[in-house]
Amino acid sequence: MNNLPLEIVKGLKLVIGDKSAALHEPFFGGKEWIYVKNCIDSSFVSSVGEYVDRFENDLAEYTGAKSAVAVVNGTAALHIALKLCGVLSGDEVLVPAMTFIATANAVSYCNATPHFVDIEERSLGIDPDALRDYLNYNTYFHSGLCINKVTKKVIRAIVPMHVFGHPGNIDGLLGVANDFNLQLIEDAAESLGSTFNGLHTGTFASMGILSFNGNKTITTGGGGAILFNDSKLAKHAKHITTTAKIPHRWEFIHNQVGYNYRLPNINAALGCAQLEQLDGFIDKKRNLYKRYYDVFKDIVDVNIFTEPSGCRSNYWLQTLVLQKANLDLRNEILSYTNDAGYGCRPVWNLLHRLDPFKGCPRMPLAIAETMELRLINLPSSAKLGEEK
Amino acid sequence: MNNLPLEIVKGLKLVIGDKSAALHEPFFGGKEWIYVKNCIDSSFVSSVGEYVDRFENDLAEYTGAKSAVAVVNGTAALHIALKLCGVLSGDEVLVPAMTFIATANAVSYCNATPHFVDIEERSLGIDPDALRDYLNYNTYFHSGLCINKVTKKVIRAIVPMHVFGHPGNIDGLLGVANDFNLQLIEDAAESLGSTFNGLHTGTFASMGILSFNGNKTITTGGGGAILFNDSKLAKHAKHITTTAKIPHRWEFIHNQVGYNYRLPNINAALGCAQLEQLDGFIDKKRNLYKRYYDVFKDIVDVNIFTEPSGCRSNYWLQTLVLQKANLDLRNEILSYTNDAGYGCRPVWNLLHRLDPFKGCPRMPLAIAETMELRLINLPSSAKLGEEK
Repeated sequence: MNNLPLEIVKGLKLVIGDKSAALHEPFFGGKEWIYVKNCIDSSFVSSVGEYVDRFENDLAEYTGAKSAVAVVNGTAALHIALKLCGVLSGDEVLVPAMTFIATANAVSYCNATPHFVDIEERSLGIDPDALRDYLNYNTYFHSGLCINKVTKKVIRAIVPMHVFGHPGNIDGLLGVANDFNLQLIEDAAESLGSTFNGLHTGTFASMGILSFNGNKTITTGGGGAILFNDSKLAKHAKHITTTAKIPHRWEFIHNQVGYNYRLPNINAALGCAQLEQLDGFIDKKRNLYKRYYDVFKDIVDVNIFTEPSGCRSNYWLQTLVLQKANLDLRNEILSYTNDAGYGCRPVWNLLHRLDPFKGCPRMPLAIAETMELRLINLPSSAKLGEEK
Repeated sequence: MNNLPLEIVKGLKLVIGDKSAALHEPFFGGKEWIYVKNCIDSSFVSSVGEYVDRFENDLAEYTGAKSAVAVVNGTAALHIALKLCGVLSGDEVLVPAMTFIATANAVSYCNATPHFVDIEERSLGIDPDALRDYLNYNTYFHSGLCINKVTKKVIRAIVPMHVFGHPGNIDGLLGVANDFNLQLIEDAAESLGSTFNGLHTGTFASMGILSFNGNKTITTGGGGAILFNDSKLAKHAKHITTTAKIPHRWEFIHNQVGYNYRLPNINAALGCAQLEQLDGFIDKKRNLYKRYYDVFKDIVDVNIFTEPSGCRSNYWLQTLVLQKANLDLRNEILSYTNDAGYGCRPVWNLLHRLDPFKGCPRMPLAIAETMELRLINLPSSAKLGEEK
């Protein structure tokens, strides 16, 4: 029997202690009560209320985006961003094979098809060089649009994802997007607070999206946002996420098929309070990274994933990387650690193998397929990184 | 000049008093704060938590439905119900011309087309007799399906709406649905607490939907639910509204394109507290109806809308009905009342005239077109009906 699973449980115990630990728990240590109580007391819990505006302003200020539009969750944010960047029925959208299923679902909501692309080991994000080679051989231009040689469909957009909060190579991907005339939407659902060359993830293209699900670094219960570099586009996003109603003293005129995607005020209130604590959460998470690193650096068969150079990661999820791809060993480690009360998880099952996306086009996915068998997320709550 | 606008302002003053009044405000006088605080203290604000289950059980118990599935809003509930009843891309769905735009939007999300139908004056809901005549002349059966003679498309479903909380003629509509092989989804977004022949609206067909938007009788900030008479279908709805993930200790297997439509626990907590007060809210709203009735009964040119016989309405929105259709007069009344601080509103602009739905098929809409010029909603918050 391989001794590694037991060694890992021992390592986790050194960092976490004897108590059990979930993969990720939110922490409410700020003004959550005060703001939420204010909503209830004032009876502004729903679409009208000050916290939605405030949360949007706070997000824009924190990330350096021009504007932010708060929505009901990250999936809704992706759906609207894809619509706004011009994804049409029948298009293809480049999506990493290794991401949460929401990215591919949102493409489906536009009646478009995800086209799966490979990742790089150093950032876990899309590999710009491999993608460029692939697109060079497998697409052609027609009327300025990038066309898939096999399906003859327009490849309209690319949605890079900053996996586990670690910034991907957004510079390289912007270059590919530019050269192949692709719209780029940055999926920063997991990377609030993470920067690439000093700039906040989600702000490199015209739109980026955030998530505030209960498992994220900060939470609004359920929630998300779209970041914009163009206030006019942001205004339009606000319009179509709030049923596309034209302002009028009493008439109900809606000028297009809109969505009911607005974030309720009570959830935004939670978000305002959480955002005030974000920097503290990230300090703790970076501290937790160091502890895991120190404990696991002497185990030869594993590494703790370290932020790519030039980047500052929020370390949303801490990640153990097995030296060799090995499904049996990975699952054994998951069993041992979970049996010991530590909420460890593998990376998502690769999307191109899931029933709803089995038939979708894809490039060779060698790195994603290897990393799927090598990655294990460790308990990552900010409170685990508190100074002892 | 017609004296009616001033008479109506005077009538509103008699009922409401000198202070201004919004169209509808929520009221938080129960355990909202205790339940929400409990969420924050326990850190269960998101998808995991006891209040979602409790709210679903409470809703089922209150309405007499077999099961309820809580979702992020009424629009999402409609979208999922349409999907589950088998609405396919290219289908038509019968929708009243006089309803909130969400009903038609949800049909669009399924890549189907709303087909607008007329209402009856007595309930403001779809007129079953007129609809039956229309379908007899304008459709034929093919392979057991109801086909639109003009468009040749399948008319798959009908979505009657209980307008302003007043139960429509659901018995008659179930007959039509049965005879023309239409799926029926009851849009009870506005009628929580309203009954038809003693049974709760939303429970007459296999699915009905509710809304808990901030303007509704009870609110969760934003929220909705689907009511089911079939627990298996409810289980499936829960599955696809929560990303269609197959339960597993750690794997992320999703077996279809799912949605992120779950209601966060913190919003469900609000819902549990609000539902405990629903009967009290309805008593007050029915009391408010009586006050409006008493004040306006002597003004010859108007009526206060009264629940159809055999029904018990929650009187979500109180409604003034002008004797004669008159757009100028309606707008003048809206100006006078709003200028006086009373949040009065017309009914929704009819959907078949809005840009996104202009080209959609429709039956003659004589009653809807008349009623659009006759209906004015009056301030309707429960607190206005408190005993003085």
